[in-house]
Amino acid sequence: MTTIQAYAARRAGGPFEPFEYEAGPLGADDLEIAVESCGICHSDLSMWDNDWKLTEYPFVGGHEVVGRVSAIGDHAQGHQVGDRVGLGWTCRSCMHCDHCLAGDHNLCLSAQGTITHQHGGFADKVRCHWGWATKLPDGIEVASAGPLFCGGLTVFNPLVQFDVAPTARVGVVGIGGLGHLALMFLKAWGCEVTAISRTRAKESEARELGAHHFVATSESDALAKQAAKFDFILNTTDAELPWDAYLAALAPRGTLHTVGAAPKIEATVFPMLAAQKSFSASPTGSIVTTHKMLEFAARHQIAPMTETFPMSQINDAFEKLRNGSPRYRLVLTR
Amino acid sequence: MTTIQAYAARRAGGPFEPFEYEAGPLGADDLEIAVESCGICHSDLSMWDNDWKLTEYPFVGGHEVVGRVSAIGDHAQGHQVGDRVGLGWTCRSCMHCDHCLAGDHNLCLSAQGTITHQHGGFADKVRCHWGWATKLPDGIEVASAGPLFCGGLTVFNPLVQFDVAPTARVGVVGIGGLGHLALMFLKAWGCEVTAISRTRAKESEARELGAHHFVATSESDALAKQAAKFDFILNTTDAELPWDAYLAALAPRGTLHTVGAAPKIEATVFPMLAAQKSFSASPTGSIVTTHKMLEFAARHQIAPMTETFPMSQINDAFEKLRNGSPRYRLVLTR
Repeated sequence: MTTIQAYAARRAGGPFEPFEYEAGPLGADDLEIAVESCGICHSDLSMWDNDWKLTEYPFVGGHEVVGRVSAIGDHAQGHQVGDRVGLGWTCRSCMHCDHCLAGDHNLCLSAQGTITHQHGGFADKVRCHWGWATKLPDGIEVASAGPLFCGGLTVFNPLVQFDVAPTARVGVVGIGGLGHLALMFLKAWGCEVTAISRTRAKESEARELGAHHFVATSESDALAKQAAKFDFILNTTDAELPWDAYLAALAPRGTLHTVGAAPKIEATVFPMLAAQKSFSASPTGSIVTTHKMLEFAARHQIAPMTETFPMSQINDAFEKLRNGSPRYRLVLTR
Repeated sequence: MTTIQAYAARRAGGPFEPFEYEAGPLGADDLEIAVESCGICHSDLSMWDNDWKLTEYPFVGGHEVVGRVSAIGDHAQGHQVGDRVGLGWTCRSCMHCDHCLAGDHNLCLSAQGTITHQHGGFADKVRCHWGWATKLPDGIEVASAGPLFCGGLTVFNPLVQFDVAPTARVGVVGIGGLGHLALMFLKAWGCEVTAISRTRAKESEARELGAHHFVATSESDALAKQAAKFDFILNTTDAELPWDAYLAALAPRGTLHTVGAAPKIEATVFPMLAAQKSFSASPTGSIVTTHKMLEFAARHQIAPMTETFPMSQINDAFEKLRNGSPRYRLVLTR
């Protein structure tokens, strides 16, 4: 039994207030993590607002956790009390379905989310299945690591899943929390990287982060000038894009991939067919992709650009996320 | 110089009539093929009707040609006069762009079509670049081989391009000229094959061709019962499908692939994202995929089911294609 001190919103969009709850006995396969910091993801905002109609209140968000293992269930594997670990969107999967057994734990049909099936990491402690807690490798900067576990994994995962080649020309749509990480990963992956944003406001930062080229879609014919260019376009926004224009910017065999949950896609089939183009989408990543992502980030010194707030100022941080323009990811520290 | 005796329509949907034209000097890289037979593809009908607004009249269709090499250009490679060859949708590609050099000749931006850039195979002779004429391997039944060169290649190509695994559960939508070939290829490919048709009219034939299962979409909840089942769905129709229902029938990581040119796709993104699903499309196939397809068909004794008409009865054959229900592919013989 553990009493957990958290911050919860009692209604959609309502203020986060101190909230204490009893976590019950620790599951046999679970770990308890003493939270040191927790990133704020755009999906925390969506859950807070109940955009997806699956939020239960009181709502404790937070799924970009870094902390130390503070307790270990009887059957949990591979961790020691005191290990520094991270936890992302998924906190548990069944571990015995074919998706789990194939290594696609993130596609497990009974996977549980850190903020959708339990109270999350805006707290002093949070729990998860041992498999979903990942030890931070040497070389990862602890203070800014949280956002790697959701934002970082989400943009890294497609590179693995869709075998993006280091020779590829890749466009990244949206230079924000996810997009700025995508630029860094893709630069280190070896690709020719183009940042695609509405205006040129973020151009110099995007180039510093790894973009070789910059496209401002508000400029006339900007997308049309990219016709048949990209092998892979990674959309990190949840906007309804001008899909045909983006598909036209793909080279033959190209893929338009979204990790942002736009409501729907509507596209003309014939140009896709003539040039063998694809549209695809993916959620975060699996356990092993998390491991690979962290090793890759450590090797290439990839760290999210963060602004930090003490966790007690959680409401100020959410205000900044909703109405400000964070550069690029917000992290709450305890 | 060759005078070619063909059948041409002088206006959209108008009757095919004898038509003689001068083919000019044979290109250095070209072959001339003395046509023995030529399949009729649904795209011949679309071109005849000018559905795609690119038909020039007089229009000579025919791009599922089988015949013998009757003349060889000065620089043409790999063929002898008298070789029995086939020719499909594409008759020429530039051979020097990166797509051609990478083996994706079918995606060459200056590829030319047998019936879109010249007069086609409803004739006594037709021409093409030497690379696009493929020798029939031993074991291919000559009389029915024509439809392999467009219909067969079109449904075989995605299996190669998208690495469809022999362990996959595959659905084939539409059991017609393309679909009946897809069932045979997929059965031989090792997959668990489900034929998906509007009614059960073709069920017994579909099962004989290779389907392990049959789904009639006109039956209540038929598609819903297939939820999360298929690793790959191959749509051979050009209808606007209930896209979300088909995407829901995909297992996690699944792909809905179309070789039929439906006008557009409209789909909800979130379920695709949650289960890492894709939508893709492809045209016919490359030169080497044609070779592989023929070898595979010969090894597995895959032959189109055809109904034949003498070429002089071309108008009766088109009437049957437009208003009848051919089982499954029509071939004109000389």
